[in-house]
Amino acid sequence: MNEFNKLKELFTEFPGIGPRQAERFVYFMLRKNGTYSRMLTDAILNLKKHMRQCEESYQFFYSEDPTEKLAPLARNTHRDNSLLMIVEKDTDLENIERSGEYSGKYFVLGGTVPLLEKEPEKRVRVEELKKLIEKKSKEGLQEIIFALSANPDGEYTTTVTKEAIAPLAEKYNIKISELGRGLSTGTELEYSDKETIRNALRYRHT
Amino acid sequence: MNEFNKLKELFTEFPGIGPRQAERFVYFMLRKNGTYSRMLTDAILNLKKHMRQCEESYQFFYSEDPTEKLAPLARNTHRDNSLLMIVEKDTDLENIERSGEYSGKYFVLGGTVPLLEKEPEKRVRVEELKKLIEKKSKEGLQEIIFALSANPDGEYTTTVTKEAIAPLAEKYNIKISELGRGLSTGTELEYSDKETIRNALRYRHT
Amino acid sequence: MNEFNKLKELFTEFPGIGPRQAERFVYFMLRKNGTYSRMLTDAILNLKKHMRQCEESYQFFYSEDPTEKLAPLARNTHRDNSLLMIVEKDTDLENIERSGEYSGKYFVLGGTVPLLEKEPEKRVRVEELKKLIEKKSKEGLQEIIFALSANPDGEYTTTVTKEAIAPLAEKYNIKISELGRGLSTGTELEYSDKETIRNALRYRHT
Amino acid sequence: MNEFNKLKELFTEFPGIGPRQAERFVYFMLRKNGTYSRMLTDAILNLKKHMRQCEESYQFFYSEDPTEKLAPLARNTHRDNSLLMIVEKDTDLENIERSGEYSGKYFVLGGTVPLLEKEPEKRVRVEELKKLIEKKSKEGLQEIIFALSANPDGEYTTTVTKEAIAPLAEKYNIKISELGRGLSTGTELEYSDKETIRNALRYRHT
Repeated sequence: MNEFNKLKELFTEFPGIGPRQAERFVYFMLRKNGTYSRMLTDAILNLKKHMRQCEESYQFFYSEDPTEKLAPLARNTHRDNSLLMIVEKDTDLENIERSGEYSGKYFVLGGTVPLLEKEPEKRVRVEELKKLIEKKSKEGLQEIIFALSANPDGEYTTTVTKEAIAPLAEKYNIKISELGRGLSTGTELEYSDKETIRNALRYRHT
Repeated sequence: MNEFNKLKELFTEFPGIGPRQAERFVYFMLRKNGTYSRMLTDAILNLKKHMRQCEESYQFFYSEDPTEKLAPLARNTHRDNSLLMIVEKDTDLENIERSGEYSGKYFVLGGTVPLLEKEPEKRVRVEELKKLIEKKSKEGLQEIIFALSANPDGEYTTTVTKEAIAPLAEKYNIKISELGRGLSTGTELEYSDKETIRNALRYRHT
Repeated sequence: MNEFNKLKELFTEFPGIGPRQAERFVYFMLRKNGTYSRMLTDAILNLKKHMRQCEESYQFFYSEDPTEKLAPLARNTHRDNSLLMIVEKDTDLENIERSGEYSGKYFVLGGTVPLLEKEPEKRVRVEELKKLIEKKSKEGLQEIIFALSANPDGEYTTTVTKEAIAPLAEKYNIKISELGRGLSTGTELEYSDKETIRNALRYRHT
Repeated sequence: MNEFNKLKELFTEFPGIGPRQAERFVYFMLRKNGTYSRMLTDAILNLKKHMRQCEESYQFFYSEDPTEKLAPLARNTHRDNSLLMIVEKDTDLENIERSGEYSGKYFVLGGTVPLLEKEPEKRVRVEELKKLIEKKSKEGLQEIIFALSANPDGEYTTTVTKEAIAPLAEKYNIKISELGRGLSTGTELEYSDKETIRNALRYRHT
């Protein structure tokens, strides 16, 4: 395979990028001069130099100190240690931080478990989560909040991960919850699906 | 104004119909023969002959018995009299019935109260609702569920109508609730708005 | 069938209206008072009183004079009698008038001929068109412009109607043309389909 | 700026990529192992090793022979030397080739000239085009076809580039044309814009 097609193929692995857009990226690289190419490749190769994954939350973070094991959020003593929120990926975590509505800690599962997959630990960080719960149970952890997307994979991931940590939660008397389901902003009753109506009724509040 | 424009203007009042579509409707009527026009006008003029509004729920219903005051749902003795759901309009009620998730009674408010409107009773059936609560309080009513759309008008309507019925609810010891807010089917955390995240957190459940 | 469903069914025949929207229309009629219903049915029944179809162009037009046989555009002596444009329906004609780019006469075919239909005269006004060409040939007609939509039905209708009038056009030495094909406003070369590229090349101009 | 943000910023320059998607790309790179990163950076740095720009058409092409100056299309003796098509970019050229409707030669302008820009030669390869016309005039060139997108920038680019090459075209008696304008595939008359109707009328054909 020639260099054009090799680069095109690698770009197709980028999230959300199909062959046509990958081709546009290659032409973009061809038009750019050597300086940009070098800056880009340097940035790619240096990316992990100071970026590492938090040993507790598995969030990626930047630090020039090679001995730093924890992301700023994990180390922040002003965050509420009694709450631990389970998210699928870093960009979910970032959107929740942007909302400014949550002040506890996080754990990044690293993916979802597709329906029918029998071994969730192959897809998401179940063992790492258990280890963290053991540790956090000594630091005042009272509630684990599952915050996965409201779709079949997200729901299945919540179910199997919950089961996996249930014994630990019981042992340390930690509550397990998940994000409320119901009407999201803008939902009109006239067009709501059956599942949303069921959840909105079930979790109605005063 | 000539007949073409008069009919076009009347069609523009139809829900969701702009001037272009209204014009298409007029051309459609022009192409149709006299039989269809007569069937349509007969159907319009006869519509209310056997359709009336339920004296309790204000739902429209069909009955050939002119002494019938109640819609089938209002009369149905298998429905749960302890629950009363407040909806904006008949089509909302129908979508909730289609979901099969609710077995109580209904009340159709007949609209929403726009923000800043100070006299909600001009826009929605507040007095009729109070009268129904008085009556239903003697028949076992325990909870009133507000089921309006999750948008500013729906939220404001819920707020002002709640206030209006609060004294009655207290008097008869009736709980007031509203549909749960949170993630609706398909919501992805990465793209959720701040309000949905706040509600999903606030109404998280085990 | 009761009156509600009867009216709903009739509304479903309106162009572009499905069962859900038809139901919304019925609820709209139920909420409206008797005055609106009467205005609407009057407007429907009176629609054809002063609206008639032009005996030349078959365009619908309004006139209080029952002896008037021609639409304003057909009788307008300032329009160019050497050009006759063939359109599918009144709304196409109106959009072309809105553009202000055409100053000739029109003929409304009244529909399109679906592919495989062998008898176009059953679907569109072929005989009426021939009669008009005979007449207009004495009034200076020099060119007939086919202005149908750029889709299979439009193209097939153009083909079969052209064939049907070809002998007449030859007899009276009238040119037959059709609207130019190529790039419409906003077309990007990168995303153009094969047929558009072929036409744009074939009909390139200086 | 740290490595995360540096890479994010460089990705934002990719065509069609905003800050959110650029961030997703960075997280994607973080999750990928060193092998992928190295394959990607190698592919980027090697991209231009065997890719070069045709000295005639300025199309990018692959060749392992460093003495090869012309792209396959430019050197193909079966292509029609009497036609030269001017396109904005390589992906336009490729889409036209995919259509199989054109058999002449190409010239890639390398961009468009924004409205109000007074010095087109700063944005597109005007001088290179003139040089090619001089050369091709000796090889039978008879027509130059402008094939830019049907939008304001494309039209302005056509206008100013045409002006720039007009004296040469006259000198060598070369015709200048542009792609046909009119109804593109699927255009419906009822919804056409004024400019499309004007062009479709102006460029109507028999």
